[in-house]
Formats: sequence, structure tokens, C-alpha cells
Amino acid sequence: MVVQVVTRRSTGPDDLADAALAVAGRRGLSGMTVRGVADEAGVSIGAVQHHFPTTDALYRFVFQRLAERIRRRIDRDPVARDAGAPVDDRLSAALRHLLPTTVARRREAAVMVEFAARATHSAELAEVQSLILGGIRSELVEILGAHGLPEPDVRAALLLATVDGLALDAVSAPSLYPGATLDACLSRQIAAALTP
Amino acid sequence: MVVQVVTRRSTGPDDLADAALAVAGRRGLSGMTVRGVADEAGVSIGAVQHHFPTTDALYRFVFQRLAERIRRRIDRDPVARDAGAPVDDRLSAALRHLLPTTVARRREAAVMVEFAARATHSAELAEVQSLILGGIRSELVEILGAHGLPEPDVRAALLLATVDGLALDAVSAPSLYPGATLDACLSRQIAAALTP
Repeated sequence: MVVQVVTRRSTGPDDLADAALAVAGRRGLSGMTVRGVADEAGVSIGAVQHHFPTTDALYRFVFQRLAERIRRRIDRDPVARDAGAPVDDRLSAALRHLLPTTVARRREAAVMVEFAARATHSAELAEVQSLILGGIRSELVEILGAHGLPEPDVRAALLLATVDGLALDAVSAPSLYPGATLDACLSRQIAAALTP
Repeated sequence: MVVQVVTRRSTGPDDLADAALAVAGRRGLSGMTVRGVADEAGVSIGAVQHHFPTTDALYRFVFQRLAERIRRRIDRDPVARDAGAPVDDRLSAALRHLLPTTVARRREAAVMVEFAARATHSAELAEVQSLILGGIRSELVEILGAHGLPEPDVRAALLLATVDGLALDAVSAPSLYPGATLDACLSRQIAAALTP
């Protein structure tokens, strides 16, 4: 008789979120199940349910984890972090991390769009979305305001919405928004945001 | 003994789509079920399944129906249809129909965002999305090109993405994008699109 020993790793919410993000990237948020996340992390379904008792809790954690990951990437970007580089180059380098110009970023953008869609019918998720978008917008307001531009609030709101809209349209209608179009649109929009 | 006679109306796909759109408006696309649509239309579940054998088929029809409804509203808009009005006023009047500035339009925008989210993982729905967005973009290219503006393609792609992004952010993070912000952003973006 063969006794099969299945080793269950001890796994915290951060590891589970990474596993969930990997599943969501491949199958979409809507294709992410508790069983799929448990399999990916090598833990029991109960372990996942312990940390994420509801689907929305799982969605929220995945989205926050994704936002952190993109944040770290922007912070490490050599142009975005270079205080001596022209502001349009810095903005472009930072915001390109939000656009689906590679397969990996397309997956990220799809998760962000699916999260936003779910947030339209969940006050809890809408609050998380407001927090993340509000954080990015505040940084944009600061950058634009530091350049003495009038109405930095409207400029920042518009710039953020444009990036989100480019991501939305590019993941849902890819043939209409190839990489070159996304780049051209972003450059044009940043130039407009910086025009007094 | 009481014999209950339930009258089932004869209902075509258009009536079903209207019923489905009403359900989706109230509960979101994700909250729309075959049973909910059947109840709304006063028909059997089988009648709904006959016309819409898959969830994607139902989603597609609801989205196309919504796009037609908005299209008709724009065509009837007194400013948008006035060939003698300034082009910025006409564009503003037309594109405002896509922004969630009222409760009814917020519901419509939420359905559009949910459809786009689902299209990220469905080639069939992505094709429908491309067709609808492509149609709007072509009209924008025509309007901008008729004014002798350079790069009308990029301008149109950017203007459409901005409107979609404003709708996305406003339905998923309403506190960040109140009506006044949406209006200010749209005006600014139209002015930028019309600047040579």
C-alpha cells in the first residue's frame, strides 16, 4: 500500500494573492475560482477561504496586489525615477506601465478592467478603486501643479481617465488599438496636459 | 378547481433584448440571468434560451441594443444634429450621451464597462466591441478630418478612449468623477482634439 503524502505549504495572504494574480492573469478575474487559487498556491480550499471569505475579498486583494506590483515597477523605472529627466519623458515612462503594450501588461490591464466592472455594483470594491485611482491622480496633480499649470485637478483627472480608457479599449477591442496607436495617443495626451 | 391560465406574449428577440437591457440596467450584466429576463419579458425561460442559447449571445444582443438606443438619442439631439452649430458644441452634445452624468446614463455606462470586461476574454464579444467602437471612431475621424486637422486618426482614437475612460472611472469610482469633473474633462479634451 502506498501512502501518498501531500505537503501543504504554510501560506499567508500575500502568497495567496500572488497565486490568485497568476490565475487571474491567465483566466481573467471572472475565471478565477477558489479551487484554482488553492491549486496554484498548493494549499487547501479551506486555507484560501480562511483568508478570503468572499469573492469580493479575493478580488480586492488581487487588485491591490496588482496595483502594488505596478507601483514598484514604476518606482524602479530608470526614466520615471530620474528627477533630471524632462517631465513629459517621466510621465510617459510611468504611465506606459498602465497600458497593455505587452502580453504581460495586457493581462494586467484586463484584470484592472474586470475589477472596475465589478466595482460598478459593489460599494466595497468601488471604495478600493477610488483609493487606488485617487492615489495616482494626487501624484499627477502634484507633478502638474509643480509646473505651474492652471487647473491641475482637471488636467490630472483627464490624463488618468485617458490612460484608463486606452487600456479599456485596447483590451476589449485589440484590433483598434495596437501598440503604436497607444503610444501615439499617450504622447499626444501628455503634451496636451503640459500645454499652458 | 381553479384553472390558472397564464398568457405568454409572443416575443421576438428585440422585445427580449429590451427586457434584458432593463434587467441589466437594474442589476448589472453580471446580475442578469435567463430567468430574470424571462420574468421581465413575461415569457418562458425556454423562449429566452431559444433566441439566446449562450450567455455571450444575450450579452451581445443587450450591448448592441444599448448602442442603438444611444445612437438614436444622439441623432435626435437638437445640438448634435444641427449642421450650423459650432463643431465643439456638436461633439460635446453627442459625446455627453456616453458619459454617466445621470442615473439612467450611469446604468448604461455600467453595462458598457461590464461588456468590455467580458470582451477581454471572448473573441466573439471583442469583435462586437470593435465594430461598435470602430463605428464611432470612424465618425470622429470624418468630423475631425473635415476640419483639416492633422492626424485625425490619432485624434479620434484618443477622443474616444478618453470618453470611455471617463465613463469607466466615473462608474467604478463615482466619488472621484462627479458630473462637473466629467463636463470639464470632456470640454478640455474636445478643445484639444480641435487644436491644430
